[in-house]
Amino acid sequence: MSEITFTVLEESLGRIVLVKLKGGKTLRGLLEGYDKHLNLVLSKTEDVTDGNEGVKLGNVIIRGDNVILISPVGG
Amino acid sequence: MSEITFTVLEESLGRIVLVKLKGGKTLRGLLEGYDKHLNLVLSKTEDVTDGNEGVKLGNVIIRGDNVILISPVGG
Amino acid sequence: MSEITFTVLEESLGRIVLVKLKGGKTLRGLLEGYDKHLNLVLSKTEDVTDGNEGVKLGNVIIRGDNVILISPVGG
Amino acid sequence: MSEITFTVLEESLGRIVLVKLKGGKTLRGLLEGYDKHLNLVLSKTEDVTDGNEGVKLGNVIIRGDNVILISPVGG
Amino acid sequence: MSEITFTVLEESLGRIVLVKLKGGKTLRGLLEGYDKHLNLVLSKTEDVTDGNEGVKLGNVIIRGDNVILISPVGG
Amino acid sequence: MSEITFTVLEESLGRIVLVKLKGGKTLRGLLEGYDKHLNLVLSKTEDVTDGNEGVKLGNVIIRGDNVILISPVGG
Amino acid sequence: MSEITFTVLEESLGRIVLVKLKGGKTLRGLLEGYDKHLNLVLSKTEDVTDGNEGVKLGNVIIRGDNVILISPVGG
Repeated sequence: MSEITFTVLEESLGRIVLVKLKGGKTLRGLLEGYDKHLNLVLSKTEDVTDGNEGVKLGNVIIRGDNVILISPVGG
Repeated sequence: MSEITFTVLEESLGRIVLVKLKGGKTLRGLLEGYDKHLNLVLSKTEDVTDGNEGVKLGNVIIRGDNVILISPVGG
Repeated sequence: MSEITFTVLEESLGRIVLVKLKGGKTLRGLLEGYDKHLNLVLSKTEDVTDGNEGVKLGNVIIRGDNVILISPVGG
Repeated sequence: MSEITFTVLEESLGRIVLVKLKGGKTLRGLLEGYDKHLNLVLSKTEDVTDGNEGVKLGNVIIRGDNVILISPVGG
Repeated sequence: MSEITFTVLEESLGRIVLVKLKGGKTLRGLLEGYDKHLNLVLSKTEDVTDGNEGVKLGNVIIRGDNVILISPVGG
Repeated sequence: MSEITFTVLEESLGRIVLVKLKGGKTLRGLLEGYDKHLNLVLSKTEDVTDGNEGVKLGNVIIRGDNVILISPVGG
Repeated sequence: MSEITFTVLEESLGRIVLVKLKGGKTLRGLLEGYDKHLNLVLSKTEDVTDGNEGVKLGNVIIRGDNVILISPVGG
C-alpha cells in the first residue's frame, strides 16, 4: 500500500471510522489495528447499515477483502 | 496479518466467537484454532443466522475466504 | 493452514464429513483426502442439500475454493 | 494438490467423468487431461445439465476455476 | 497448464472455436492466440449467444478469467 | 501497472476524480494518493451515485479491488 | 500475456477500441495505454452500453479485472 494509505490509517488509530463492506453493511467503531490487506480490528463496533441506531458488535476483526472503503469520522 | 489481529484471535482461543460469513450465515462456537488466511476451527458450533435458536454443527473448519468478520462474544 | 486445521482433517480421514459449498449445496461422504487448498476427495458422497434423502454421487473431487465449511459427523 | 487428488484424476483418464460447474452447468465426457489448477480437457463432452439428453459439445477445455466438483462415473 | 491443454489449444490455432464466458455469452471465432491464463485472441468473432445469428465483433482479446470453456468446432 | 497508468494518476493528484465502484456506487473527490493495487485515498469525497446531490463522505480510503474505473474530471 | 495479445494491443494504441466490462457496461475510446493485467487507459471515452448515444467520460483508467473483452474498432 502506498505511504499515504498507511498515513491515513495510522492517523486514524484510536479514532472512529466508518467501514463500508461488500454486501451492503456499514460498521462504525474505533480503529484498533490494520494491516496491508486492510484486515481491520475495531472496538466498540456498531452496525449502522442504512442509518440504523447501531446494533452493538463490540470487538471485531474484519477480513480485508470485504472492505469497500474506510472513512475516518470527523477527521 | 498485523500483530493486533493475531493478538485478538490468540486471546479468543477457547472462548466463544461470532463469525459472520458471506452469503448471510452467522455461526457461534468456541475458537479452537485459526491461521493467517483466517481459516478457523470451531467446536460446539451453532448456526445462529437471523437470531435462530441454533442449529448444532459441532466441530467445523471454516475456509477463511468466506469470513466477513469475527467477533469475540462477551469479550 | 494452521496445524489445528490439519489435525482436524487428518483425524477425519475415513470418517463421514458434511461439506457445505458456496451456492447452497451440502454434500456428505467419507473423507479420503485433502490438501492445503481444501481440495477434498470424498467417497460414497451424497448430495444432502436441504435435508434431501441423498442423491448418490459416489467418488468426487471438490475444488477447495467452493468450500464454506467442513464438519466431521458424529465427531 | 494432494497425491490422492492426483491419484483419482490419474485413474480417471480415458474414463467418463461428470463435471459440475459454477453457474449450474453439468458436463459429462471422457477425461483426456487435467492440471494442478483443475483445468480439464474432455472429449465426447455432453451438456447434461438438469438431466438433459445431452447437447453435444465434443472436445472442450474447461478453465479450472469454474469447477465445483469432478465425479468419475461408474468408478 | 498441462501439456494436453496446450496441445489442444495449439492444434486449434487458425481454426474456429466456441468460447463460453461467465455471464452467459458465447463467442465463435478463429483462434489467433492464447496464453497460460487462457487469455485468447480471436478474429472474425461473432457473438452467438443463445443461438443468435451472430453479431460481428471482429478481432477481440478475451481476458482469460471470463472463460468457462473453449471448444474447437468440427474438431 | 504501466507507466501511462501511473502518469495519469500522478497528473490527477490534488484534482477531482470520479471513481466508479463495483456494486454501482460512484464517488467524486480530490485524489490524495494511490498505489499499484489502485487503492485510492480521496478527500472531500461525495457519493454521487445516480446523479445524487452528493452525500458527503469526507476522507476515504478505497480498496482497489472495488474500482471499475477512475476518471479525472475536467481533465 | 502471450506475444500475440501484446501485438494486438500494441497495434491498437491511438485507435478506437470497444471494451466490454463485467456488469454489462460497454465503453468506447482511444487506447492510450495498457499493461499485463489489462489495466487500460482510454481517452475520449464514451459509455455506449446498449447502443447508447454515448455518455462522455473523457479520460479513464479501467482496472483490468473488470475487462471481459477488448475489440479494436474498424481494425
